[in-house]
Amino acid sequence: MENDFVKEITSKTEDFSQWYVDVILKTELADYSPVRGCMVIRPYGYALWENIQKLLDDRLKATGHKNAYFPLFIPESLLQKESEHVEGFAPEVAWVTHGGDEELAERLAVRPTSETIICNMYSKWIKSWRDLPVLINQWCNVVRWEKSTKPFLRTAEFLWQEGHTAHRTDTEAEEETLRILDIYQDLVEKDLSLPVIKGVKSESEKFAGALKTYTIEALMGDGRALQAGTSHNLGQHFAKAYDITYLDTDGQLKYVWQTSWGVTTRLIGAIVMVHGDDRGLKLPPVIAPIQAILVPILGKQKETVLAKADEILAQLKDDIRIEIDSRDEYTPGWKFNEWEMRGVPVRIEIGPKDIQKHQVVLVRRDTGEKYFVDESELLPRLKELLDDIQNNMFLQAKKFMDDNIRETDNFEEFREIIEAKRGFIKSHWCGSPDCEKHIKEQTGATLRCIPFSEELNTGKCIICGKESNTTAYFAKSY
Amino acid sequence: MENDFVKEITSKTEDFSQWYVDVILKTELADYSPVRGCMVIRPYGYALWENIQKLLDDRLKATGHKNAYFPLFIPESLLQKESEHVEGFAPEVAWVTHGGDEELAERLAVRPTSETIICNMYSKWIKSWRDLPVLINQWCNVVRWEKSTKPFLRTAEFLWQEGHTAHRTDTEAEEETLRILDIYQDLVEKDLSLPVIKGVKSESEKFAGALKTYTIEALMGDGRALQAGTSHNLGQHFAKAYDITYLDTDGQLKYVWQTSWGVTTRLIGAIVMVHGDDRGLKLPPVIAPIQAILVPILGKQKETVLAKADEILAQLKDDIRIEIDSRDEYTPGWKFNEWEMRGVPVRIEIGPKDIQKHQVVLVRRDTGEKYFVDESELLPRLKELLDDIQNNMFLQAKKFMDDNIRETDNFEEFREIIEAKRGFIKSHWCGSPDCEKHIKEQTGATLRCIPFSEELNTGKCIICGKESNTTAYFAKSY
Ligand SMILES: [Zn+2]
Ligand SMILES: [Zn+2]
Repeated sequence: MENDFVKEITSKTEDFSQWYVDVILKTELADYSPVRGCMVIRPYGYALWENIQKLLDDRLKATGHKNAYFPLFIPESLLQKESEHVEGFAPEVAWVTHGGDEELAERLAVRPTSETIICNMYSKWIKSWRDLPVLINQWCNVVRWEKSTKPFLRTAEFLWQEGHTAHRTDTEAEEETLRILDIYQDLVEKDLSLPVIKGVKSESEKFAGALKTYTIEALMGDGRALQAGTSHNLGQHFAKAYDITYLDTDGQLKYVWQTSWGVTTRLIGAIVMVHGDDRGLKLPPVIAPIQAILVPILGKQKETVLAKADEILAQLKDDIRIEIDSRDEYTPGWKFNEWEMRGVPVRIEIGPKDIQKHQVVLVRRDTGEKYFVDESELLPRLKELLDDIQNNMFLQAKKFMDDNIRETDNFEEFREIIEAKRGFIKSHWCGSPDCEKHIKEQTGATLRCIPFSEELNTGKCIICGKESNTTAYFAKSY
Repeated sequence: MENDFVKEITSKTEDFSQWYVDVILKTELADYSPVRGCMVIRPYGYALWENIQKLLDDRLKATGHKNAYFPLFIPESLLQKESEHVEGFAPEVAWVTHGGDEELAERLAVRPTSETIICNMYSKWIKSWRDLPVLINQWCNVVRWEKSTKPFLRTAEFLWQEGHTAHRTDTEAEEETLRILDIYQDLVEKDLSLPVIKGVKSESEKFAGALKTYTIEALMGDGRALQAGTSHNLGQHFAKAYDITYLDTDGQLKYVWQTSWGVTTRLIGAIVMVHGDDRGLKLPPVIAPIQAILVPILGKQKETVLAKADEILAQLKDDIRIEIDSRDEYTPGWKFNEWEMRGVPVRIEIGPKDIQKHQVVLVRRDTGEKYFVDESELLPRLKELLDDIQNNMFLQAKKFMDDNIRETDNFEEFREIIEAKRGFIKSHWCGSPDCEKHIKEQTGATLRCIPFSEELNTGKCIICGKESNTTAYFAKSY
C-alpha cells in the first residue's frame, strides 16, 4: 500500500525515457496540453523556474544588464535580413496570417529568438560610442515548431531569457560572451548542482548567424549530453544586416560588435534527468520550492504533536522554505514516499517520542540518512544539512560525468562506446566538417564542444588520421 | 540651452495626447516597434513593471496563490466552447495558420486571455473537493488585435497577470473576486499613488463570459477614466462549458465556481497620465526604478566633490535605489532637467560649499521644494522625504479626482460636463441597458461602475426618469 504510487513510476534503468515522463507528470512539474507540442508548467515546476530566474537575474543585474521587453511578432521581411539566421530558423517558425477576420498584408513570425527585432531597435537607438555598451536581457516565451517534443527538453513553446548586447570592439564582445558563459556555469553548477563541460561549438553546430557559439554541456542519467546554455559572439553579422552603427571618438561611423545568449526551461529537464532516481525527483536545496517537509507523526497524541509541529514551523519558516503535511487521510509512510517522489531535500519528522526527548528527526533525500537532532539546534543543523546535500548532489553528478568521459582515437571503439555506454567521448578531430559529419552519420553522436583549458594534446583525427591538436567532446544528445 | 530638451515635450494642457506620447518616448519608457500596434518596453519602463510585478506577486503569494504557465496558443475549437466568451474575443484574435511550411489542421489563437485553455486543464486536474480551491496566477503576454493603439494603454500585445481560481461554493468565489479587487486597490493606491473608484460593471460592460465584473477605475489628467484592474466572478459559466466538476463530500458530482482577474502594463500608462506634468514624468518613490539621483556640482574642485559623492552613494545604496550622474559633458542644470523629466522623486546635489557646511541638498520632484540636510541625517531624512512624496502624490491625485466627480440627474448638464470638463459624472440610472446605451451614443461616455458603499440614494434615472436607487459613475474612457 505504502509503495503504491511509487510503483507507478517506471524504473529509471528499465526505461529512462518513460521514467522521465512519469516523474514530470506524477510530481506535477508539468502536464501535456491540448496544443500540439506545448506543455503546461504546473505550480511546482514553475516555482522551480522562478527560483532559477531569480538566481540568474540577480547575476545578470550585478553585471550591469537590464531587462526589457520586445514584441512577440516579427514581420517576415525583418526576419529575412540575415540570411544564415533565417535559413536556420525558418523551418521552425509558427506564422500568424490573420488578425480577427482580416488577412495580414505581411505574415508575422512568432519569435523563435529575438535577434532580428532587437537589432532593428538597436539600429535606431545606438548613435554614438557614448551609447555603448548596450546590455539588455529579456525573459519571455519563444516558439519553435518542432516535430517531436518532450516536456521541458523540446517543446514548441518554451520559456527562456535571451540577452542581447552591443559593444564598441570585438574584444569587448568576446569578453562579454565568455563572461556570460561563466555566469551560466556558475548558476548551473552551484545552484542546480549540475556539472558541465565548457567549450566552443564547431562551425556546423553553432547558432545560425553567429561568429562563435560557446556552450555548457551537461551529461544526463542515460548518458546523453544536454546543451544547458549557449553564449554567442555574433561578430558584426547582424550589425551589417540591420545597419547598427555608431559614431566613434575618431569621427568614423562603425558597426557594433554583438553577443546573444540564453538558457531555457530545459534546465528543469536536466535537473530531473541528472538527479532523479527510481523514487522520483531529487531537487538541489538552493532551488527546491520546498526545502523541508514537516511530517508530524500523529498517532494518539495528535494535538500535542500538531502543536509542536506548528511551533517548529514558526521557528523555521523565515529561513527555510518549509511546508507541513498534516493531512489526516494519509499515513506517515505514504507521505514519506510522496515527498521523496517530489524531491524535497529534507524530511522533518516529529512524533510523541521525539517530543519527550526534545528531539527532531531529519531525513535527507539524497542519501536517505537519518539524524536525531536536539530541538535547540534544529535551524543551524538543518541549514548545514541543506548545504551538504547541495554539495553532495554536485559531487555525485560530477562523479557520474567523470566516469562517463572516455577517450579514444579509434573509431571502432568510439562506435562501441556509443552503442553500449554512451557518455562523452573525447577524440582527436582534424577540424574538418566532413569528419564531423561522418561521425554523426555513422554513430548518431554529435560534436558537443571543443573544451577550454586543455593542454596541447597532439594526435591523429579519429576519422581521417590527419595530425590534430584538437580534442573534442562527442555524445548523443537531447 | 538648459531647457532645450524639456521644450521638446508638448505642453500637457495644450495637447494631452501628444504630451503623453512625448513623455513615453523621451523618457525611454517605451518605443514604437516595426510591428503594427506592438511596442518595445525599454529598460526604464520595464524596471517600473518589474517593481509593480514584485509588489503584486508578493501580495498574491501571501494570499495562497501560486504561479504557473499555460500555452500561448489555443486551438480554435477550444476557444469556441463558451459562446459569450468567443463572441467577445474572436474579432481581436491573431491566428496562427502555419508551422514552418505546413498548414495546420486547426488554426491556433494567440491567447487573448487564458480562461479556455486553463479551464481545459482544470477539468483534468480537479476531481474531488480536496483539490479545491485551486488558486493559480500567470504572468505572461497576451495579444488582442486592436485597430487603434497607444503605448501602454492599448497595444496589440501587452503584458499582464491573469489569475484563475476554482472554488467549492459561490460564496467562496465571490469572496475571492472581492479579495483580489481589494488587493488591486491596495497596490494601485498605496504603491502607485493612484486613487481609484471601486465598483461593479454593468451587464453590457462586463467581461465576456463572466457573471459579474468588478473594477477599479482611475481618473487620468485629461479627465478620462481608465480601467486599472478587473476581477471577475465567472460563476459556473466556464465550469459548465469545459466540464469542470468535483466529487463533493456528499458524494455528488458538482460544477466548480470560478474567478479570473488581471492587471496589465497599462498601469504604467496610468502612472504617466495621472502624475506627469509639463516637465515630464513624476514617479511614485515605491516603484521608481531610480528613487534618488545624485548630481555632483563639479566646478573647480572636481576630485573632492566626486570623492564625497561616491561616499554618499556608498552610504545610501543599500537602502535606496540611487544612481550618480557624474557625466562631464553636461552641465548640472541640464542634468536637473533630464532627471526631472525622467520623474526621479528626489535629486541630491552636492557641491564644494555643501561639503564645507557638511550638508547635502535635497530637491523633491513633486513640489520642487529644496532642503539643506546635515550629512549625518541624510539617510533618515531621505527616507522620510520619499514617504512624504509617495503620500503627497496620492493626495494630489485624490484631490484632482474628487474635484472632477460631478453629480447630476440632468442629461443636458451631463452632456455639457462631458464636453467641457470630462471627469466622472455620478448619475441615477434605472439599470436599463437602453438608457446606458443612449448615454454612450449621445455623449461617448460609458458606465464605468456602480460604486460600492453608497448610502441608499433614491432619485430618477437621468434618461428615462424612472425611480432609481442606483447611482453609477460615467466617463469618457481609455
Ligand atoms: Zn579528420
Ligand atoms: Zn432609465
